[in-house]
Amino acid sequence: MPDRDAHLRWKELSRRSLAASGLFDLVEAQRVSSNGRRGDFWILEARDWVNVVPVIRDPDGTRRFLMVRQYRHGADLITTEFPAGLIERGEDPSAAAARELEEETGHRAGRLSLIGELRPNPAFMTNRCFTFLAEDLVRASALSLDELEVLEPLTLTADEVDRQMGRGELVNAMTVAALFAYHRHLAADR
Amino acid sequence: MPDRDAHLRWKELSRRSLAASGLFDLVEAQRVSSNGRRGDFWILEARDWVNVVPVIRDPDGTRRFLMVRQYRHGADLITTEFPAGLIERGEDPSAAAARELEEETGHRAGRLSLIGELRPNPAFMTNRCFTFLAEDLVRASALSLDELEVLEPLTLTADEVDRQMGRGELVNAMTVAALFAYHRHLAADR
Repeated sequence: MPDRDAHLRWKELSRRSLAASGLFDLVEAQRVSSNGRRGDFWILEARDWVNVVPVIRDPDGTRRFLMVRQYRHGADLITTEFPAGLIERGEDPSAAAARELEEETGHRAGRLSLIGELRPNPAFMTNRCFTFLAEDLVRASALSLDELEVLEPLTLTADEVDRQMGRGELVNAMTVAALFAYHRHLAADR
Repeated sequence: MPDRDAHLRWKELSRRSLAASGLFDLVEAQRVSSNGRRGDFWILEARDWVNVVPVIRDPDGTRRFLMVRQYRHGADLITTEFPAGLIERGEDPSAAAARELEEETGHRAGRLSLIGELRPNPAFMTNRCFTFLAEDLVRASALSLDELEVLEPLTLTADEVDRQMGRGELVNAMTVAALFAYHRHLAADR
């Protein structure tokens, strides 16, 4: 079958590593377009991520989300986000979601459902982000944070999150995308 | 006023450049937490971005978005996204939105409204992303693409975008966040 998008694609000619850490590798790729233009592109090879949307239903029907507040080094800001993290090498995305949920909030989920899969930034990042809905939560343990994580869990009602999303501390685009996946999932359930 | 979040913040001890291009600088920052833990963090200093949500209203009331299809080097994928791009140094975000809209779609907007401001990835990126609603569109010029841009504009109805967002080619998390900002803006208008 002919590739009707061949005019849009670029082919890689060469690449070199600019920097590598345990978490990311930054490479510069030389690529050529279908009409012969050449460019050097920075590509960040990053591990896949998980977002977890942990929902608690109060006896009166109020829905609340478990979330985490933490200092974010890139933006130099304290943000409130859904629990999230990197998927370890060889780890199943749902196992990573269960692990991050427990590490960051001390809760286990009776049910974990994949409700979204996105590209955090396809322009220069290679990775995917999976969003899981976590339900039937039980308090299982104390927090178990990575050595370099300092965060505090909190709950916000779904109404508060809907109202505040995109403002104040709720400004991480990946958290917005996770909320979008949650609303899409709710609408499909109706 | 005491900082009630002092226990969450990290202080920078030193930083070194790992790599620099015209668009990004990658630095490694050594930082220390309030309880004395030290870590090295990758921080990507990136220019701010704009997303533009260009809306056309057909005579029958149907709403359509101007969007762009392009090859994305990071994910090695063809995606469909809202027009978007980097803000030039010293450029006003709304001027960048007008410029990207015209370059990528050949349209000018009679009205540009800021409807959202997010952090693409506060964990390791320094930048902001502004989302503008573009209305009263007029076809003004041919496309005017950067030398290394190869893309094709298209229109999709708002219903199609609502249905497809998060699937197929509509998987850029920043495009999802822009659609979220658009729906939030519509709801506030009601």
